[in-house]
Amino acid sequence: MALVPKIFNSRSGQEGEFFNTIKRILGFKPKNITIYEEAFTHRSLNEKNKQGIPQNYERLEFLGDAMLGSVIAAHLFNEVPSGDEGYLTKMRSKVVSREHLNELGRDLQLIKLLKTNIPTKQFGGNIHGNIFEALVGAIYLDRGFKYCEKFIRKRVIKPYVDIERLEGKIISYKSLFIEWCQKNKKSFKYVVYDDTGKDDLKHFAVKLQLENTVVAKARATSKKKAEERASKRAYYKLQVAIEKDLN
Amino acid sequence: MALVPKIFNSRSGQEGEFFNTIKRILGFKPKNITIYEEAFTHRSLNEKNKQGIPQNYERLEFLGDAMLGSVIAAHLFNEVPSGDEGYLTKMRSKVVSREHLNELGRDLQLIKLLKTNIPTKQFGGNIHGNIFEALVGAIYLDRGFKYCEKFIRKRVIKPYVDIERLEGKIISYKSLFIEWCQKNKKSFKYVVYDDTGKDDLKHFAVKLQLENTVVAKARATSKKKAEERASKRAYYKLQVAIEKDLN
Repeated sequence: MALVPKIFNSRSGQEGEFFNTIKRILGFKPKNITIYEEAFTHRSLNEKNKQGIPQNYERLEFLGDAMLGSVIAAHLFNEVPSGDEGYLTKMRSKVVSREHLNELGRDLQLIKLLKTNIPTKQFGGNIHGNIFEALVGAIYLDRGFKYCEKFIRKRVIKPYVDIERLEGKIISYKSLFIEWCQKNKKSFKYVVYDDTGKDDLKHFAVKLQLENTVVAKARATSKKKAEERASKRAYYKLQVAIEKDLN
Repeated sequence: MALVPKIFNSRSGQEGEFFNTIKRILGFKPKNITIYEEAFTHRSLNEKNKQGIPQNYERLEFLGDAMLGSVIAAHLFNEVPSGDEGYLTKMRSKVVSREHLNELGRDLQLIKLLKTNIPTKQFGGNIHGNIFEALVGAIYLDRGFKYCEKFIRKRVIKPYVDIERLEGKIISYKSLFIEWCQKNKKSFKYVVYDDTGKDDLKHFAVKLQLENTVVAKARATSKKKAEERASKRAYYKLQVAIEKDLN
């Protein structure tokens, strides 16, 4: 029996739960929801269309991979005017690395939407990145390049693409933040809690307090990642003050 | 002394010869011509902007490569609904192969526009493909994805992307055409002539006559390629008749 997430039972075009979930992930309205359904259909379901052509996310994955490559290329081109071809190539491969795409897909919990005949626990880590790529491909087909770019900015570039981090100039925002606190005799505290509920995927949420005031919050699939992400956010908030102090 | 093609001497924004040449190659108007100038500037010129950042086509080449990848991916995705991920990946790598891009750049004679300190005869074959990619990158920057796609359709997909040929199903259109003529007792003649003039690059033009009527014309960098291209055009013109006869 196919393991079809419940969410699909209640779907009915523009009204269904699936539609609303996709809309929330995208940050804009999908037009043709059936394209997204294909993006969440695993080959194990063995679905075929009227012409006998298999309907699963693998073709969309190919398309999404290409779109990710060009959007990230354009972003790096504009963002790093001093970077030569070799630099840009290296940076792009870091952003679209398998590991990174898996993290993106995992954080969005895309696997919860997957229709499959294989229990999701049997999948390796790459399933998360594959579905993420397929989703990008679906957005391109449904709404065109501009919206595809918009989604990638929201879900890949804004939260994750940090040139200094990618270049290895900043190894850890957490240590940078702690260093600043010690230098300035400020107290700080990372408050971490497990916010998983009944999910398959464990998630951690972090509140970062500076002198008893919450300065940043973050959520990730590990305690370490959540702390790092919160530190990064705090770092950028305090950047003016930090830069003044470290110099 | 820099080897700057004469064409650049007469340029003055929207009026110059360079502008008009680019417009002809693009099939639409460039907006910011300076972007295209960078696309034709070789690193040997050692040009730098006010910030000391090298100005040559290498960054644009990176961008163009990415845009070509995504436009061809989308084209194949739509064109071959039955092709799986592996098939699409293989087909795309054939279309954007180094050899193919070199042919595209060579046929457009892009090297004639190149500003360089190295005599163009000293360049290897890859220079043609590299400039072609840079030109695609310039179009994206200047006019956005839609126009980039338009150019790639005109210059890559329409004249070159032939799924059956790429799949190896059709080895030669010339033999297909000749076979048809023999079967149907039709006379045919390939009239080839060298149309190079004073160009560095030798070109061949072909007229293909069927029963003393010219049915197709083509131009390429070798006699064989020009004949093949003319045969392909003739083949598609006569497709209905040929298909009827071969079956």
